[in-house]
Amino acid sequence: MRTQVAIIGAGPAGLLLSHLLSLQGIDSVVLEARDRAYIEKRVRAGVLEHGTMELLRETGVGARMDAEGLPHDGIYLRLDGESHHVDFAELTGRSIKVYGQQEVVKDLVARRLADGGDVRFECSEVALHEVTSDRPRISFVHNGQSETLEADWIAGCDGFHGISRSHVPGEDLQRLYPFAWLGILAHAAPSSEELIYAKHAHGFALHSMRSPTVTRNYLQVHTDEDLAEWPDERIWSELSTRLAGDDGFHLTTGEIFDKSVTPMRSFVHEPMRSGRLLLAGDAAHIVPPTGAKGMNLAIADVRVLSHALGQWAATGATEGLDAYTETALARVWRVTHFSWWMTSMLHRFDGYDPASTRFDERVQLSQLRYTVSSRAAMTTLAENYVGMPFDTGWCYS
Amino acid sequence: MRTQVAIIGAGPAGLLLSHLLSLQGIDSVVLEARDRAYIEKRVRAGVLEHGTMELLRETGVGARMDAEGLPHDGIYLRLDGESHHVDFAELTGRSIKVYGQQEVVKDLVARRLADGGDVRFECSEVALHEVTSDRPRISFVHNGQSETLEADWIAGCDGFHGISRSHVPGEDLQRLYPFAWLGILAHAAPSSEELIYAKHAHGFALHSMRSPTVTRNYLQVHTDEDLAEWPDERIWSELSTRLAGDDGFHLTTGEIFDKSVTPMRSFVHEPMRSGRLLLAGDAAHIVPPTGAKGMNLAIADVRVLSHALGQWAATGATEGLDAYTETALARVWRVTHFSWWMTSMLHRFDGYDPASTRFDERVQLSQLRYTVSSRAAMTTLAENYVGMPFDTGWCYS
Repeated sequence: MRTQVAIIGAGPAGLLLSHLLSLQGIDSVVLEARDRAYIEKRVRAGVLEHGTMELLRETGVGARMDAEGLPHDGIYLRLDGESHHVDFAELTGRSIKVYGQQEVVKDLVARRLADGGDVRFECSEVALHEVTSDRPRISFVHNGQSETLEADWIAGCDGFHGISRSHVPGEDLQRLYPFAWLGILAHAAPSSEELIYAKHAHGFALHSMRSPTVTRNYLQVHTDEDLAEWPDERIWSELSTRLAGDDGFHLTTGEIFDKSVTPMRSFVHEPMRSGRLLLAGDAAHIVPPTGAKGMNLAIADVRVLSHALGQWAATGATEGLDAYTETALARVWRVTHFSWWMTSMLHRFDGYDPASTRFDERVQLSQLRYTVSSRAAMTTLAENYVGMPFDTGWCYS
Repeated sequence: MRTQVAIIGAGPAGLLLSHLLSLQGIDSVVLEARDRAYIEKRVRAGVLEHGTMELLRETGVGARMDAEGLPHDGIYLRLDGESHHVDFAELTGRSIKVYGQQEVVKDLVARRLADGGDVRFECSEVALHEVTSDRPRISFVHNGQSETLEADWIAGCDGFHGISRSHVPGEDLQRLYPFAWLGILAHAAPSSEELIYAKHAHGFALHSMRSPTVTRNYLQVHTDEDLAEWPDERIWSELSTRLAGDDGFHLTTGEIFDKSVTPMRSFVHEPMRSGRLLLAGDAAHIVPPTGAKGMNLAIADVRVLSHALGQWAATGATEGLDAYTETALARVWRVTHFSWWMTSMLHRFDGYDPASTRFDERVQLSQLRYTVSSRAAMTTLAENYVGMPFDTGWCYS
């Protein structure tokens, strides 16, 4: 079996890459370990940047997003109960949309299959071979059969725990944060029309949503937090405390149907290519979810990669592919900085030294007060949150 | 001997406070340990914020500053040789002036003496007594005589190494930086019309000036750097390397007449008052010089303090004095954050762990690239550098 681009992983990155290649007449095969039902239900990210929305729309996979996604013109920042609105639309002329990652995945799977795309679910024993040669290949088992897929290029879109990254020699650069997020999904109407990021003496909290009937809420907790100590009542009570505001906010509760503790990590693997293997999305980098960037960054990678592969397919030129790591990393580090900045500004940090902890707290508070007081500072938050434009590289100019 | 406000220290803070009180008809005595020639030659800060200039002008001590100070509309940021201009005038409608602290001191001493002010030089054995009572007093020796000065209020403007702070119970909050600045003064014309802040693989460098014939240059060095290892030629050579730019920059050299190594520290003492003793300027806080904020912050403290003492003298009300710590600290922490931010963005940090050092470097570089690329981000730098306006508190709104 042979294809032009073999794609490992049917998450947003792998599926969108396959779709973008298809629009350019480039053949691809997507190999996914899980079944279709699983990936279409897997709840992960939920915020789409302006540029992500435009890309989905322009490439014909944005109709349901436009019909069902929840448009948001900003977010709220809560400072020990004091509420401040960051008006993205007014500050940047752009906005975001709340639309679950699993919905994006559903739309992309449906489109790939409608277009006759080759997406293979439940592939096991996936292994990469000779990725630095001109004839890289993937062996795997599908429907009980051992298969080999030869390709011109392999795209590793198999996430942080995937196998692809181990085939790209390089360096893992990372920062671990001294806290985690306890996240819940609940059958409850959102209590706010926009997301609320709350800095509170008890720690950070985030009120978010996935649909008009499902809320997603987070609490900063210890890295070794035991979920057994968080019965539903305690979670709702703590969320109410941390999210309380001077704007009459009332938290709507409901049945919690998912509860998990997620470590917070910033991680970048450099480079993002080895020979004919190219990494995209979580396979190459992880950001803490504070800036809502994970899926958007994966999609930005794939956009760069699809252009580079398009150039190669049309002309044989590899300039775009040779520049892929550098081009993609510029945005990766922009987003890594922004996600770190949001995280560092909003969480409670307990240092080992009380005096330097208090110093850091005062600096943190001053930064947050400045961010909600200065139009320029608030614009830096807004323009990063809605996403730096694609076409001027990774920043406004 | 009795006065309304006893002021310890004839630096910019103490002298300006005495002047501002005098304009309100409030009596003060300034006690200074050094002689007049010494304080009028002591080279320290050299950049005046927009608001500092306005205050000096409005209170009649800005004439020589306006005639001889060097107006600057911006600064240059250098990124491994790549030059970027931060245009304060265009971004904020404000600008700064290079005018040595010793010149401000000369102007203030001259004005106080012309106005019949009481400024006593070479006071020794200065000691504070009963500052939490209604009758605080200062004992000291002047011209061989033991003296006692009773006052309604004592202003501790005696700098970081002064005695006043030890009489204010509270907490020292600080951060030490893992590097120092090797600073030189040289008889050489400035090589640039504006300051150059350079981030270079060897470490940070700053090209600055004090007059049309005197330059002030700095190099990031180790905290335990031995000046003996820095002969003049090595200093000029290293400055040329780090300051080199893509704009044809050429460093003019000259006789180095002052050379020193300064540790970098952020320090805030909270609160800034105990009873009838009020701290202002370096007596209460220190910022690293990267943001050119030390003298400006001292002057901002004194402005708040003079208003509060004016209210008290006119009406007996102490609301302003009771709020002094909180009012002053809001600006202190804004400036502490800004100075930390400038410092952290421009210096080379050598962590103990290579992988996390490289992570930090990438984040730092992305932040710097963003700062020179985004108008909003550049405006945050500019508005902090020219100084947050006094009258809306400590931030734009």
